[in-house]
Amino acid sequence: MVVLVRPRNPLNIGAAARAMSNFGARHLRLVNPYAVGFREARSAVGASALLTNAQEFDTVAQAVEDCSLVIGTTAVRDRDLQNPLRRLNDESGSAVRAALKSGRVALLFGSEKVGLTNEDFTHCHWLLNIPTHEQHISMNLGQAVAVCLFGLSRSVADNATPNDAEPAESGELEKITQGLYEALKISGYVKPGNDAVSEKKVRRLMLRLNLQAMDAKVLLGMVRQIVWKLRQAGKN
Amino acid sequence: MVVLVRPRNPLNIGAAARAMSNFGARHLRLVNPYAVGFREARSAVGASALLTNAQEFDTVAQAVEDCSLVIGTTAVRDRDLQNPLRRLNDESGSAVRAALKSGRVALLFGSEKVGLTNEDFTHCHWLLNIPTHEQHISMNLGQAVAVCLFGLSRSVADNATPNDAEPAESGELEKITQGLYEALKISGYVKPGNDAVSEKKVRRLMLRLNLQAMDAKVLLGMVRQIVWKLRQAGKN
Repeated sequence: MVVLVRPRNPLNIGAAARAMSNFGARHLRLVNPYAVGFREARSAVGASALLTNAQEFDTVAQAVEDCSLVIGTTAVRDRDLQNPLRRLNDESGSAVRAALKSGRVALLFGSEKVGLTNEDFTHCHWLLNIPTHEQHISMNLGQAVAVCLFGLSRSVADNATPNDAEPAESGELEKITQGLYEALKISGYVKPGNDAVSEKKVRRLMLRLNLQAMDAKVLLGMVRQIVWKLRQAGKN
Repeated sequence: MVVLVRPRNPLNIGAAARAMSNFGARHLRLVNPYAVGFREARSAVGASALLTNAQEFDTVAQAVEDCSLVIGTTAVRDRDLQNPLRRLNDESGSAVRAALKSGRVALLFGSEKVGLTNEDFTHCHWLLNIPTHEQHISMNLGQAVAVCLFGLSRSVADNATPNDAEPAESGELEKITQGLYEALKISGYVKPGNDAVSEKKVRRLMLRLNLQAMDAKVLLGMVRQIVWKLRQAGKN
């Protein structure tokens, strides 16, 4: 599934949808699109079903809630990135195709001007970079979507045996993140005035764990019980 | 070198130029472009030097005169083609890169509506096809240029350096297990009489996380703080 975060240009939204149909990707989601641009793209002559069925979300967290692998795209290679960075090649393509066998995969693209933010990145398991010429790293959005989908879809073989360990969905991880974060606040691990940093830290930690769905459920139960106890104690 | 044959849309010409700069292709040639479209593309804000230096030709023959390998692109796979047909993959990419060492290579793209004609094909050594979804084979021109240049320019040794993060040691995992287990006991998650089962459960869970050494350290700090707080609360 392709997730466009804060896209503005209707032509780019349409181009992304067209590339998706070329490479067999079916679901388009938009986070906070520029309303006029989205309306124009949707009402354009020849707009595809894929485009008219595109879903809108307010936040990245909501858009990727049911996904088990979330990948952010970035033009930048050496920025101080907290996430693992992979190049678009056979290896990353295999990783994505493997993940598709057992869950949903979200491929995030940022706005035309500034791309994805560091906050967006905290929702991503890893980042994907298209190897480009060093002097011209910034790609057109529609072209970036086309190249990524081509690169990831190569040699599609969809009929392999499904993985028995189902990965946790992002919505579940977010609940654990929120619970653990609350426990850390109550217990004084999170220092006042440092809220944002630590919440991101916890979210990234959760993503790196590659939790299975079953384990996520167990962990969420544990965290909730601990939070409950900490709250109880605070009342006395 | 990219040769656009009878392109019409200025946005597509501009998009082709942009993709070329992304992937390090330098020379753009146009055969019989729609005059208005070409003028618009050239005069667009931010038009690159590549675009302003693009050369115009009346015929395909003239445009590829100095090239030692001429490749036509086509969306069609089973048309009655007289030329050898290759798919865009590592093999065709290698062939192109090898040819570039000893001469010029022209990559031809047809007009937005009808692509290259059979007459155009007679100038081509072979044809190149982008593997797309069967129901949607026709790509946007700018996106096709981007995907082709990406596919052909992939360097053979572009493997990303794998994440060689150091794994956590068992002793560290055991400390987290013990800490978490204590937190679970204090908070009532572990039921009396069921101690052994749950401790094992926690330990197995920790093992499945494949924690990195750095993350284990962070997690241990979190767990210890939570345990400390729970104990404090218990004293009151």
